[in-house]
Amino acid sequence: MRGGSGVRKKKKLDVARVFHALGDATRRAMLERLSDGPMSVSRLAEPLPITLAAVVQHLQVLEEASLVMTEKVGRVRSCRVDAAGLNAATEWLAARRPEWERKLDRLGEILKED
Amino acid sequence: MRGGSGVRKKKKLDVARVFHALGDATRRAMLERLSDGPMSVSRLAEPLPITLAAVVQHLQVLEEASLVMTEKVGRVRSCRVDAAGLNAATEWLAARRPEWERKLDRLGEILKED
Repeated sequence: MRGGSGVRKKKKLDVARVFHALGDATRRAMLERLSDGPMSVSRLAEPLPITLAAVVQHLQVLEEASLVMTEKVGRVRSCRVDAAGLNAATEWLAARRPEWERKLDRLGEILKED
Repeated sequence: MRGGSGVRKKKKLDVARVFHALGDATRRAMLERLSDGPMSVSRLAEPLPITLAAVVQHLQVLEEASLVMTEKVGRVRSCRVDAAGLNAATEWLAARRPEWERKLDRLGEILKED
């Protein structure tokens, strides 16, 4: 995990890493919980049926994928969602949509509006 | 694989299935190729360093995740991107973003516009 500076290290985001991280149900559950807001590692771990050590390992995968940021505040490590990984995945998905599908969706929206 | 009717079967989309499908590099490469437009299974398989049987298996996973639709036209099975799976993943990702991140991004967009 990164240190407590809170400074984002700029690095090339690997979409493979992001999708690998998202492919696991426990990690998705952790992200779902964190979308309520930042929380400590122990609070995040609370409802999960796995050991704290396993939670920390999953966190590391999420952090390496830029899906979660952790920060040490005093003796507590706080976690929050990192939008960088979410954005990378969303952009990849958006680029996979054929042009005509996008047009059709737009048409559907217009029809719904009326 | 589904039959050649081209009719979309309505079913509850399982986001776990979608992210599992997206977690594999070969399947992502297949989706990348299909975002250029529909193509036959054999044309899709051409540049991939795996057997046709393996391609068909990956296609099945993609189809079950509503990421790809296949349709038999005469003797040729044609594949294309299915937006349903892409949308499910995109919606899940969007829901993971904390409110303040969304506001910050919107602010960034406004500042860029000026």
